[in-house]
Amino acid sequence: MIVILIHFMIDNLKHACGIFGVIGSPNAAKTTYLGLYALQHRGQESAGIITTDGKAMFERKGLGLVGKVFPDEDSLKNLSGFAAIGHNRYSTTGSTNLVNSQPLLIRFFGGDVAAAHNGNIVNAQSIRKEMEGNGSIFRTTTDTEVILHLMARSGQSTVPDMISYALQRIQGAYSLLFLTPNMLIAAKDPRSIRPLVLGRKDNAWFFASETCAFDLLEVEYIRCLEPGEMIVIRNGEEPESRYPCGKQSLKNSAGCIFEFIYFARPDSEVFCTAVDKIRRRMGRQLAREHPADADIVISIPDSSNTAALGYARESRLPFEIGLIRNHYIGRTFIQPEQQIRELSVRLKFNTVKGVIKGKRVVVVDDSIVRATTSRQLIRMIRDVGAKEIHLRIASPPIVNPCFYGVDTPEKSQLIASGNCVNEIRDFIGADSLGYLSIKAMLQTSGLPKMGFCTACFGSDYPIPITDRGLKYKMG
Amino acid sequence: MIVILIHFMIDNLKHACGIFGVIGSPNAAKTTYLGLYALQHRGQESAGIITTDGKAMFERKGLGLVGKVFPDEDSLKNLSGFAAIGHNRYSTTGSTNLVNSQPLLIRFFGGDVAAAHNGNIVNAQSIRKEMEGNGSIFRTTTDTEVILHLMARSGQSTVPDMISYALQRIQGAYSLLFLTPNMLIAAKDPRSIRPLVLGRKDNAWFFASETCAFDLLEVEYIRCLEPGEMIVIRNGEEPESRYPCGKQSLKNSAGCIFEFIYFARPDSEVFCTAVDKIRRRMGRQLAREHPADADIVISIPDSSNTAALGYARESRLPFEIGLIRNHYIGRTFIQPEQQIRELSVRLKFNTVKGVIKGKRVVVVDDSIVRATTSRQLIRMIRDVGAKEIHLRIASPPIVNPCFYGVDTPEKSQLIASGNCVNEIRDFIGADSLGYLSIKAMLQTSGLPKMGFCTACFGSDYPIPITDRGLKYKMG
Amino acid sequence: MIVILIHFMIDNLKHACGIFGVIGSPNAAKTTYLGLYALQHRGQESAGIITTDGKAMFERKGLGLVGKVFPDEDSLKNLSGFAAIGHNRYSTTGSTNLVNSQPLLIRFFGGDVAAAHNGNIVNAQSIRKEMEGNGSIFRTTTDTEVILHLMARSGQSTVPDMISYALQRIQGAYSLLFLTPNMLIAAKDPRSIRPLVLGRKDNAWFFASETCAFDLLEVEYIRCLEPGEMIVIRNGEEPESRYPCGKQSLKNSAGCIFEFIYFARPDSEVFCTAVDKIRRRMGRQLAREHPADADIVISIPDSSNTAALGYARESRLPFEIGLIRNHYIGRTFIQPEQQIRELSVRLKFNTVKGVIKGKRVVVVDDSIVRATTSRQLIRMIRDVGAKEIHLRIASPPIVNPCFYGVDTPEKSQLIASGNCVNEIRDFIGADSLGYLSIKAMLQTSGLPKMGFCTACFGSDYPIPITDRGLKYKMG
Amino acid sequence: MIVILIHFMIDNLKHACGIFGVIGSPNAAKTTYLGLYALQHRGQESAGIITTDGKAMFERKGLGLVGKVFPDEDSLKNLSGFAAIGHNRYSTTGSTNLVNSQPLLIRFFGGDVAAAHNGNIVNAQSIRKEMEGNGSIFRTTTDTEVILHLMARSGQSTVPDMISYALQRIQGAYSLLFLTPNMLIAAKDPRSIRPLVLGRKDNAWFFASETCAFDLLEVEYIRCLEPGEMIVIRNGEEPESRYPCGKQSLKNSAGCIFEFIYFARPDSEVFCTAVDKIRRRMGRQLAREHPADADIVISIPDSSNTAALGYARESRLPFEIGLIRNHYIGRTFIQPEQQIRELSVRLKFNTVKGVIKGKRVVVVDDSIVRATTSRQLIRMIRDVGAKEIHLRIASPPIVNPCFYGVDTPEKSQLIASGNCVNEIRDFIGADSLGYLSIKAMLQTSGLPKMGFCTACFGSDYPIPITDRGLKYKMG
Repeated sequence: MIVILIHFMIDNLKHACGIFGVIGSPNAAKTTYLGLYALQHRGQESAGIITTDGKAMFERKGLGLVGKVFPDEDSLKNLSGFAAIGHNRYSTTGSTNLVNSQPLLIRFFGGDVAAAHNGNIVNAQSIRKEMEGNGSIFRTTTDTEVILHLMARSGQSTVPDMISYALQRIQGAYSLLFLTPNMLIAAKDPRSIRPLVLGRKDNAWFFASETCAFDLLEVEYIRCLEPGEMIVIRNGEEPESRYPCGKQSLKNSAGCIFEFIYFARPDSEVFCTAVDKIRRRMGRQLAREHPADADIVISIPDSSNTAALGYARESRLPFEIGLIRNHYIGRTFIQPEQQIRELSVRLKFNTVKGVIKGKRVVVVDDSIVRATTSRQLIRMIRDVGAKEIHLRIASPPIVNPCFYGVDTPEKSQLIASGNCVNEIRDFIGADSLGYLSIKAMLQTSGLPKMGFCTACFGSDYPIPITDRGLKYKMG
Repeated sequence: MIVILIHFMIDNLKHACGIFGVIGSPNAAKTTYLGLYALQHRGQESAGIITTDGKAMFERKGLGLVGKVFPDEDSLKNLSGFAAIGHNRYSTTGSTNLVNSQPLLIRFFGGDVAAAHNGNIVNAQSIRKEMEGNGSIFRTTTDTEVILHLMARSGQSTVPDMISYALQRIQGAYSLLFLTPNMLIAAKDPRSIRPLVLGRKDNAWFFASETCAFDLLEVEYIRCLEPGEMIVIRNGEEPESRYPCGKQSLKNSAGCIFEFIYFARPDSEVFCTAVDKIRRRMGRQLAREHPADADIVISIPDSSNTAALGYARESRLPFEIGLIRNHYIGRTFIQPEQQIRELSVRLKFNTVKGVIKGKRVVVVDDSIVRATTSRQLIRMIRDVGAKEIHLRIASPPIVNPCFYGVDTPEKSQLIASGNCVNEIRDFIGADSLGYLSIKAMLQTSGLPKMGFCTACFGSDYPIPITDRGLKYKMG
Repeated sequence: MIVILIHFMIDNLKHACGIFGVIGSPNAAKTTYLGLYALQHRGQESAGIITTDGKAMFERKGLGLVGKVFPDEDSLKNLSGFAAIGHNRYSTTGSTNLVNSQPLLIRFFGGDVAAAHNGNIVNAQSIRKEMEGNGSIFRTTTDTEVILHLMARSGQSTVPDMISYALQRIQGAYSLLFLTPNMLIAAKDPRSIRPLVLGRKDNAWFFASETCAFDLLEVEYIRCLEPGEMIVIRNGEEPESRYPCGKQSLKNSAGCIFEFIYFARPDSEVFCTAVDKIRRRMGRQLAREHPADADIVISIPDSSNTAALGYARESRLPFEIGLIRNHYIGRTFIQPEQQIRELSVRLKFNTVKGVIKGKRVVVVDDSIVRATTSRQLIRMIRDVGAKEIHLRIASPPIVNPCFYGVDTPEKSQLIASGNCVNEIRDFIGADSLGYLSIKAMLQTSGLPKMGFCTACFGSDYPIPITDRGLKYKMG
Repeated sequence: MIVILIHFMIDNLKHACGIFGVIGSPNAAKTTYLGLYALQHRGQESAGIITTDGKAMFERKGLGLVGKVFPDEDSLKNLSGFAAIGHNRYSTTGSTNLVNSQPLLIRFFGGDVAAAHNGNIVNAQSIRKEMEGNGSIFRTTTDTEVILHLMARSGQSTVPDMISYALQRIQGAYSLLFLTPNMLIAAKDPRSIRPLVLGRKDNAWFFASETCAFDLLEVEYIRCLEPGEMIVIRNGEEPESRYPCGKQSLKNSAGCIFEFIYFARPDSEVFCTAVDKIRRRMGRQLAREHPADADIVISIPDSSNTAALGYARESRLPFEIGLIRNHYIGRTFIQPEQQIRELSVRLKFNTVKGVIKGKRVVVVDDSIVRATTSRQLIRMIRDVGAKEIHLRIASPPIVNPCFYGVDTPEKSQLIASGNCVNEIRDFIGADSLGYLSIKAMLQTSGLPKMGFCTACFGSDYPIPITDRGLKYKMG
């Protein structure tokens, strides 16, 4: 009997991972638990926390949401100490298992080191192959472990030096946190692909993927990390910056613009900029590029709410709630042979007939991957009586997979890679379809003065994909 | 160590229960599972399904969400048959246990009968006391079991007659579903307090608390039940209506208006009327009664979204997304001594600073119970720089507890029962506060032509509360 | 795929249940836990404890061994109070479920009463049918619940009077313990079929099925209960005896002689007599009735060890250990198609080749039910080279099922009910077979001066089986 | 609150581990499951099976008994293939965790290799330290992983050659099984300290710690492995022997004599000799060395049953059952403050008063470690009226810890290391105490013609303990 878990049928980009770290807090585990809780939207497959009390290191990891892995006070009881790092993971189905969950704790010759990673190392397979040939034994299939093995064989005597050595060998996207019994270390790749922010409260220092984790904890947001920056914080001391691969210019950055389009929470700042503001302006740009003669604007809740509001404002059309999202979707199962059309989508969304019936509707979505969900939604909207449906996408067509830490399907499954806009419109069944252009997107006012990666929209990959033939993974 | 589960600190009205039934479907259990899934918002404490194959009855119940009680295909495997009833329960903490979860299955002298109940029987305690004095033994503390004991002692020979006898003895609010090996029976109290709708697809008949369950299943919505109506559906036959307590006039009804204000999903119909439409119009009425000189309108997502849109439209102010809701709230725990203000509310909501800063903000909420959450939210909104905050409530002040199936706190804890509007405004810390008046609420255009219960807003209780001294419960 | 759980393939009589009670102990739950632990051999299907602190009653029950239901201190934490009753249950597969596990707690009109039962009420079905006709609703299929319903409808005002009323209506075998918030009550049927003993330590009073529970707790063993005796112990007072069905003569008793043959632990006293002593003497009687010209005597460990020692001593043959028992048998599963002969028996026993090879072996077993296990064991013993095998059974042939609380198979499956001794010998494959005769068994010196039930060996049933047509159950 | 788990209070030597392997069987996992089941007595802490179908390898491990780790057919479902190895582990409390459980599966550069180990590598810590200095990263604290790392760095190209290289580097006691997708390899240390046997059935080959696993499976027992022998079995081929450290003489062996005294099941053969026969003869030797003027002989069941029978036979005293063992001991917990003397021992054993009272009793035990259990047992036996108690031990005094795979306490806790026999007798409270002498033990007729290790009795350690200062572990 074939059972398909619904959350694999919903055709979204998979989220990136979320990381959080703290040093100098009397209850580091509880703080990290709350930080991961605020970053839950970045990864729901597994969660983990590793803490240290200056002597030993303590670890708890598990599959599922933060609230499942840490269901009660007792679950944090053994995680004592003043410093901690935590990780929310999202990955492909194939490698869903506990051994790959993070943070990863390694017992070195010189002591214990834990690491949490958001990103993807593009030459990890080559390095691993070479190290295995020299007798190294790997226990996970994550690229994070490659970094730890490089550290172990670095010949360096301090952990910061070991990390520097390893970072000089690897290429790719990474926001990394390392924990030793007396240090918390953060590092960001030279092209600044994934976000990472620094914060402070009382005598404690914090790192997080997004500032929404700081808001929850009333932590003061200090700044975002610079490209290629590595920050070492020894317990009781001030942060100290290094640049293992040299200082990098912001202009040469390749920040993931999908953080603004979809990944980050609208109440967060990433790359030193408020997500909500940019997302709304992209909606406005979209209205300018692709206006529609329509009665109402609706969003696909919740991810395109902000862009839809921007579109509605710019086009002076009323914003309406035409789709209701069932927030209990997480754990549904269903057999595909079920005699209900679009069941997987219906389980997540329902239409509000009174809003839609007889109307010319603009539907704003953040992006299109395979287009199967869009097609089903458009059909449901038409079924309750929409007179016209104009689909507007607040990002350009996705034509290439990401190799820097986002779980996109293969090129052949990306609808925009083999079809023109009219073909996509016909497949989906909308009356019109408009994508935001790359140019318009990058002209969105308020975007940080840095370079962005737009490889998934067809531009060059900013870092060569060394191990392309090898199956890529993400952390 | 005192740990407070967050979902008890968030100061909402507790939801009512959800019920679902089907007869004549080849896979009644799967259908009911999906129906409960769509009704999950009405109760998250426990879930259960009882099915029949014409001979035996099969049961599975558990604490938690539908997706936890039925995690996979296997969990439905033993629930064979063509007919089923299901129940999502919400109740007070005290009686949270599996023995009280529904549907309730009783082995009678004459056979098996299962029952699922949404509502509250106000004379259940008196009847129970009398029956225990005569040697009846109860196993649960639910009023549903009282109905089944009345049936057992009715002296009647058919299940419909047993039910008629029992319904003539009980007073209160009830939408009931009964299942026997060859019949599905629905019944609604004479004052029509709780909703219940009838549907059809192919040869199967369906009942549900709200039509959103029918939408998911592509079931055709036939009509809502009449006050005091009992519908008997024998397997393979057409529905047959009875009125055990006589025909009732719609005018004499006392429908729960909170279904429109808060309980029902906006995409549902209850009492034969679209919830979304009424909720939006209540927002408009609110804007007319309590306009505000402001820059933007924001909602407390998701429950007041529709009312806030109505308010914004009527007042010609821009609707904005100023609060982001974390949808993973369900399983958080936290200690009260935590050094973070408003942590319980912060875990659920975060402010979008860029939207709020420097603005005069109208905040629309659906209702106020204890006002503790409102106070914290208003403080958070002020902290990110709102210039003025005008709180608008899309329902009248709640001054009395409900005895008809909604879990309200005691009168002494309802802020509006001992404080005037200005005192509440000061407690909450808003610059102004306006509630929708009872009169304006009932004048909302489009409301069904029926009577509504407004007892919680200070009107007379439509059904005398017989067992008032006794602790009340709900099903 | 057919999987047979091994413990259903091993062809033993199922054990009876074990009960334990205490009043006046500061830690009644812990004491009862240990008592049940010592009585674990009497029932492994479920375990439960109910305690009282004088006000409320607290309960924990579960399927499996005592150590599974109560895995740690925490599991006893909520069972506060000075009095408790506990139960180890064995029953047929069909009714294995938690709802039937004991003790059973009922909330009466007048208060709470819990009951634990070892035995079987032979007219329970008739009474239940009658009460259901009058509107009583039962939740379990146990006869124990019938007693509680009789109490509820007795019209009496005190619990001891309610119990007296109920005991006058029921017929059958019972050792019963009742607990109310301030009383512990024990009762034994007029024919004294099941054992029950009274003990004391400091200010606390104790009841148990066997004295081995007292040994573990260093409780002083006072006496066994008399036929038809009911003992009421109010908290802080001395025990008070009653005879609801009148005083009974010991001569008229019908004690279960299988307690001596198989059920009770050899280190226990039941019916005021040491089990080990009687079991050994039965072995001696067996040697006198059925001597064998052999080299060694071996037992089927552990249940026939004592009888085999008696046989060896009387016959002046050396006692040897020819079979080793694997004590981890409990949780094995296996498919019947497995290509290993006698796998189910091999999993439990292995032969010691060096002991058996070339020898004429007497194998002593306590009893034969279906003979399938005996047949496999004899084959295994022959396979390792026994020259002759003489099977000796320390009890008479079982020809009738028990209706008084022992789970025997139906008559048609009892090998001795349709076959003479020679036929059984041939089926089993032994060179000779000898059963202890009823007469010799009853002449065993030291047996208590009371009547015994030998119905399973073909004598009259001492209490008429009222509900014979109805499926019988046991508690 | 301090809770002590009973099985740590019972003062026995901990068992060694059990290993099992098969190649060429259509259902290797099921076969291995049964093999581990028969070897359960050698280790109860964790169990695991790894299989291969020629391409991939499949693994399932867990804490607890075989029956807990593999509770049903489903638990074997994913373990497909024709070859498997399995492991039952016993270890010290400190390192009880899943990551250390076996078999251990490693993904090499060249492919997958799994290993299962019984024994202890005495220079594992030194090797590990050296390898970690060279950048190897270990994930467990087992010495088994050291072997796998040596293989990875061997520079050899075939798995048998890698193993040969590793075995030449390690010193200590080992019976090892390795599995690759097409080979099963067994290896035994040059001094032959731990047992390992080879068997055959149809086209499949088998290895096991003891022959009792073969009996259960009806596998033909071929022979035990020679000292230093390594056997490679490629799928479909005949076994091929190698001697990586050269051929060894049997005389130079150092077989663990505790296998005969206590570890192995009496129905097994180890070191090519029947355990039962030797154990009984040791009992006879004991009677010759230390006769007693007594009435009866009793054993501490079940481990000293066979020795006690030998003692009784030689001394012509009756063997009696004076202690009953509760076989449900496994999962009991209890607080030490409990007001019951010797509770931990009473939970496991009860005395049979009728057997002991007024008698002069010889109590035979297999060995004494700390003597705390012996002391409690002797007191219990005296409490029920023994006139004299003569304790006889079927092995010499244990004065040194084992470093070859048996979990003995530290020297300071071994009662015989700091006390003479009379002092031990007085501590225990026996009237007399006699230990079997080393000389008499080694003269026991029938012992294999090989050398034995008697280091724990005070002789020289046959292999120098390289890493003595380092905490030792066992596999």
